[in-house]
Amino acid sequence: MRATEKAYIAGFLDGDGSIHIRLKPNKSYRFGFQIAPSIVFYQSVKEINALRCIRDLLKCGYIRKRKDGIVEYILGDSKSMLYLLDIIIPYLRFKKRQAMLFREVLNRKKSIKSASDFYHLCKKIDQFQDLNYSKKRKNNSQMVKRYLVKEDLLTP
Amino acid sequence: MRATEKAYIAGFLDGDGSIHIRLKPNKSYRFGFQIAPSIVFYQSVKEINALRCIRDLLKCGYIRKRKDGIVEYILGDSKSMLYLLDIIIPYLRFKKRQAMLFREVLNRKKSIKSASDFYHLCKKIDQFQDLNYSKKRKNNSQMVKRYLVKEDLLTP
Repeated sequence: MRATEKAYIAGFLDGDGSIHIRLKPNKSYRFGFQIAPSIVFYQSVKEINALRCIRDLLKCGYIRKRKDGIVEYILGDSKSMLYLLDIIIPYLRFKKRQAMLFREVLNRKKSIKSASDFYHLCKKIDQFQDLNYSKKRKNNSQMVKRYLVKEDLLTP
Repeated sequence: MRATEKAYIAGFLDGDGSIHIRLKPNKSYRFGFQIAPSIVFYQSVKEINALRCIRDLLKCGYIRKRKDGIVEYILGDSKSMLYLLDIIIPYLRFKKRQAMLFREVLNRKKSIKSASDFYHLCKKIDQFQDLNYSKKRKNNSQMVKRYLVKEDLLTP
């Protein structure tokens, strides 16, 4: 891909995209929480072709129509997200710090071995959420810690 | 400006910006209508810095906070808009045709000499609006023609 194509995608994401991580209680996961990162580009339905332009460049991810007239182009698997981040980080301006922290979370997520690793990753996610101005967030590292201590997976 | 900076702005506009032309009845204008073109980038207030990034690159236009929590970065004068278009058109993907037609309108607007020139420019604007999916548009070249004929400025 050309440098100008990479920079184009960076501009598109800065203008219209979202990099986010949801931390959801889910007892089927080893440490009681699921970490769900994703990168999403949004458009109204009539502008779905703008998202197809980006998908054609990246050749991964999928497009989903919501019921409210918004279309999302979603990258949700680590491989695609790391590929995208490596391409655009040099050209991002507004979301650069978020993107770098997000990439760090993705990389650390691969090598979690203990409850302590998991808790420290959640603290990193807190930092990311702070950058992302996420005020509605209910689940954070303190919740994770309480859970891990209660389950005797972590010492207080 | 670097090619990657130009491509970045093109991506931002494709994702989040709007190129539009309003044709408004206004009897203080020679041909009874005002042609008001503008290029606007949008963000929510908390993301105003994204717009500042673009303004810092372009060094023209102004940022305006709306009452509904949206911030607009607006280019409204022909010189700034033509400067922006020349920079980004090679890198636009989704709004490229709109942008090229818009540039043609701006250039032709400068050299209007007669009611007939004005009417033909309005037909060009119709084409632009069709590309822009503008369905709410009330004023179009037919309205302009009716007015010009009624005022005896144009022969039917």
